[in-house]
Amino acid sequence: MGVNEWVEKFRQGDPRALARALTEIENRGPDAQPLLRALFPYSGKAWRIGVTGAPGAGKSTLVDRLAGLLREQGRSVAIIAVDPTSPFSGGSILGDRVRMHAHHADPGVFIRSMATRGVLGGLAPATADVMMALDAAGRDVILIETVGVGQAEIDIVKLASAVALVLTPSMGDDVQTIKAGIMEIADVFVINKSDQSGADRIETQLRALLSLTHQAGQETPIVRTVATEGEGVADLLAALESRPAAPGREVDVWKERLLELLRRRALEQVIDEALPVEELAEAARGVADGRVNPYEFVDDVMKKAGVDE
Amino acid sequence: MGVNEWVEKFRQGDPRALARALTEIENRGPDAQPLLRALFPYSGKAWRIGVTGAPGAGKSTLVDRLAGLLREQGRSVAIIAVDPTSPFSGGSILGDRVRMHAHHADPGVFIRSMATRGVLGGLAPATADVMMALDAAGRDVILIETVGVGQAEIDIVKLASAVALVLTPSMGDDVQTIKAGIMEIADVFVINKSDQSGADRIETQLRALLSLTHQAGQETPIVRTVATEGEGVADLLAALESRPAAPGREVDVWKERLLELLRRRALEQVIDEALPVEELAEAARGVADGRVNPYEFVDDVMKKAGVDE
Repeated sequence: MGVNEWVEKFRQGDPRALARALTEIENRGPDAQPLLRALFPYSGKAWRIGVTGAPGAGKSTLVDRLAGLLREQGRSVAIIAVDPTSPFSGGSILGDRVRMHAHHADPGVFIRSMATRGVLGGLAPATADVMMALDAAGRDVILIETVGVGQAEIDIVKLASAVALVLTPSMGDDVQTIKAGIMEIADVFVINKSDQSGADRIETQLRALLSLTHQAGQETPIVRTVATEGEGVADLLAALESRPAAPGREVDVWKERLLELLRRRALEQVIDEALPVEELAEAARGVADGRVNPYEFVDDVMKKAGVDE
Repeated sequence: MGVNEWVEKFRQGDPRALARALTEIENRGPDAQPLLRALFPYSGKAWRIGVTGAPGAGKSTLVDRLAGLLREQGRSVAIIAVDPTSPFSGGSILGDRVRMHAHHADPGVFIRSMATRGVLGGLAPATADVMMALDAAGRDVILIETVGVGQAEIDIVKLASAVALVLTPSMGDDVQTIKAGIMEIADVFVINKSDQSGADRIETQLRALLSLTHQAGQETPIVRTVATEGEGVADLLAALESRPAAPGREVDVWKERLLELLRRRALEQVIDEALPVEELAEAARGVADGRVNPYEFVDDVMKKAGVDE
């Protein structure tokens, strides 16, 4: 199947073409670049919602509820669940199965899990490409769920049009430890599990923090939810939709993404030209032994690839 | 000052030469690559300890106590504090000042904070280069402190010879949420603040988790500490020192690092050849507007740089 035919099927909503294309893109297969080029002109229409927060905050349940609500409104949905590492306990795997089951019979909800292991060129770029492809496939809304700590994760949520940061009453004083990188990109704060004690306290602390950084009357909205019961989810969706556009953020994100795309392409080129896999493994052993100077090795490979004079 | 003279002063322990070199390396200045090449042969002697864990677990205090103990043994120390984002509260800044004060009069403790913002080519590679340079500067022990969630942070601790994962009794059931990527690279588990209630409970849970993944008798050791009092810190140091060597891990780390070094060099080359800063900003605006296809743009830049036929 040629790329054009593939793109055609993809755009018609063929689920097999979609799944195959996403796998090709994630794996950086030989058709990834032509596919991305061909799909991009169809993208830019989807509304991208980021949902981030600590493990156990109830992000998955919240995302499921949002998806349910969006479906009731007749909008098609894609969920991208990004897990920075494989789960140690069976918790997340079980969660995924429950989730798959909840939307099992509904082709209007497409779910894709992204693992970090083995993603060539980094998780954030791969997620960005998958997001663009789902956008081009005509999904009305893309929900991206990720753990809210760590640079790669911050880079991922930045790709969203609107970002919800999920907290819980059990965080207690830990609200002080929320990092600036995440605070700055949150468009809505969610206090999930707000039927638990401590919800008032965390909201007070959060308002105090926000008053330090925002002008009066321009504070980021705070929404209380009980995701397991569906409570407050409609309010959350409304708060996300009322977010003012921030075109400057999009330009900044694209500056970083263009560099990232170039970095990846440049590396692929160098590897194709001058670095067979066996040589890389041998060099790594040499460096670990102290026989090979890695900085000299890199100079040599670049010279061999003909990209460094 | 030429690179050779610089390296000479650096190796003699000149603090200004050291600070300047680290800044040059962090900023990827024009002398960074020659410096790294020249310094590498002197590296490989330092013992690298990674200390990781959630915000508020007491990592900084623990690292300070370890540094104090190592100084008592007559070993020189460098501390690399990696903060994935700038702190929202004043907590970390205050912490840094307290820390600076504690070791203020001791040239045997060198402290370097790494910020993520503006680190070209990623935080983990920059940290790895700084670590190598401090190693080449003759520091006996390098302590690397980082928040233990997120892929970049995991990549950083992987660079250590031995890794301590710091937990606290207040984590409670959250021990279930510790991610596999971190579990796998922890050589010692620390229950800090172990004078608080819940220490027994978290140790029991941890042992249950470990028994699932380790052969009987080969479980990762668990050490209890009260870092603020210095309790258990000597036990922690002993546990880290008794860790068996894992040369396979080092080879894997170097495979990834060599690719990362190549990726960075290849990008720098492409940018030098074919992408002025203004053009990048203009392209980013164009993509955000939908005028520019980013995948075509990348193809064009690669062609212009002459690295893609």
